[in-house]
Amino acid sequence: MSRKEEFERLRVVLVGTRNPLNIGAAARAMSNFGFLHLRVVNPYELAFREARSAVSAAPLLARAEEFKSLAEAVADCSLVVGTTALSRRDPQHAVRDLREGGRVIRKRLAAGRVALLFGSEKRGLSNEDLSHCHWLMRIPTRKEHRSMNLGQAVAVCVYEVARDAKPLSAQEESEHAAAGDLERLTSLLLEALQTSGYLRSDSAGRSKSRSAAPAEEKVRRFIRRMNLTAEDAELLLGMLRQILWKLRS
Amino acid sequence: MSRKEEFERLRVVLVGTRNPLNIGAAARAMSNFGFLHLRVVNPYELAFREARSAVSAAPLLARAEEFKSLAEAVADCSLVVGTTALSRRDPQHAVRDLREGGRVIRKRLAAGRVALLFGSEKRGLSNEDLSHCHWLMRIPTRKEHRSMNLGQAVAVCVYEVARDAKPLSAQEESEHAAAGDLERLTSLLLEALQTSGYLRSDSAGRSKSRSAAPAEEKVRRFIRRMNLTAEDAELLLGMLRQILWKLRS
Repeated sequence: MSRKEEFERLRVVLVGTRNPLNIGAAARAMSNFGFLHLRVVNPYELAFREARSAVSAAPLLARAEEFKSLAEAVADCSLVVGTTALSRRDPQHAVRDLREGGRVIRKRLAAGRVALLFGSEKRGLSNEDLSHCHWLMRIPTRKEHRSMNLGQAVAVCVYEVARDAKPLSAQEESEHAAAGDLERLTSLLLEALQTSGYLRSDSAGRSKSRSAAPAEEKVRRFIRRMNLTAEDAELLLGMLRQILWKLRS
Repeated sequence: MSRKEEFERLRVVLVGTRNPLNIGAAARAMSNFGFLHLRVVNPYELAFREARSAVSAAPLLARAEEFKSLAEAVADCSLVVGTTALSRRDPQHAVRDLREGGRVIRKRLAAGRVALLFGSEKRGLSNEDLSHCHWLMRIPTRKEHRSMNLGQAVAVCVYEVARDAKPLSAQEESEHAAAGDLERLTSLLLEALQTSGYLRSDSAGRSKSRSAAPAEEKVRRFIRRMNLTAEDAELLLGMLRQILWKLRS
């Protein structure tokens, strides 16, 4: 697979971005380094497509895909990586340094689509957003001044992912489960846990609000940590469907 | 020497920047990665120090040093590196990829001050600016979309310089000549060439305009290519002074 074909598989996903100029700047940096697929989830200003900061990346911006939820935005990706400049208080995720993370992402692009997530300027990625991630990638800013400009953060990350890219050896990698399948697994397992009485229904409702549903987040993370292949995800889906049918009947 | 002390020696030099927001953005990225010394040469807007894009790097921006000429801005630096996104038409300079260039800069920071130059948003560095550089560093953007946003270019470059930084072994490096000495050498050699009739006075005048003085630029580049140590620069200065005295008498 060529470098270009691999780069075609990256999806940069901007979640809840406030300033449309930052969306344009992200598009420009992506285009500079050869990544042409941008997705936006609930941007604050809908007119972001006209952002002049995109400059020559205006066509990329015009083609950007818009989503109402992060789950939909990453449904076809087999690896979902959240970016952060903070030393997370979140012990549930593996955190990789940008350098190592970039290397892993490059490898995984040979096998399937990868989503690289950037949160809003003010708050970064929420806990609910993070629960969709397989792992987090930390940009190594110094502790006295952690917070980066969004467009610059995207520039540094895509530069690193492109940095050592060479045609990879054609080794077969087992196909990783798509995020859409993992999300279906999460729902089924949650239902199974509720129906079985393991979880109370109210604590694990399918609410999409950002503040609620800690149980749902825990289950989602648990499913991601399994690092399932597509085949195993299919297998587990079948098992859970059967269990749930039995629980209900 | 500690990483911090080495980082203290980098001077990011913004030449003829038009948009003050880009100066603020550059300051922010520098601060994120631990480089605290910014210099500006003839910015278009003098009120750049208030640029809100600096965010938490406002103190760094307030301390930025302002210069009327590039020669003054790099006078105390023993390595001057120009950045470019273009495949230069300039055969007079060695061009290093950002990756290799970053490595060389890190090494040289152990020995003395290094200036990293960024040109204006519209035109990049002029030929006159380039004549002050020892070599050029190319950011590996793709050929279909070479031109980067200035703040993002600074972010990617300082990220790369910081990327592998470790405490270096305390190996002694010979001290490199400061740019101020090299500029004095350039002036003396030019005068010697004119006085000797090698150059016509009109073609090599000390004009500071950007368009003129190709002979001056050629001489300046020639001096930089010599890669002189401080000691050798001193030696050559003495020789030229003597020659010039003789030529005039």
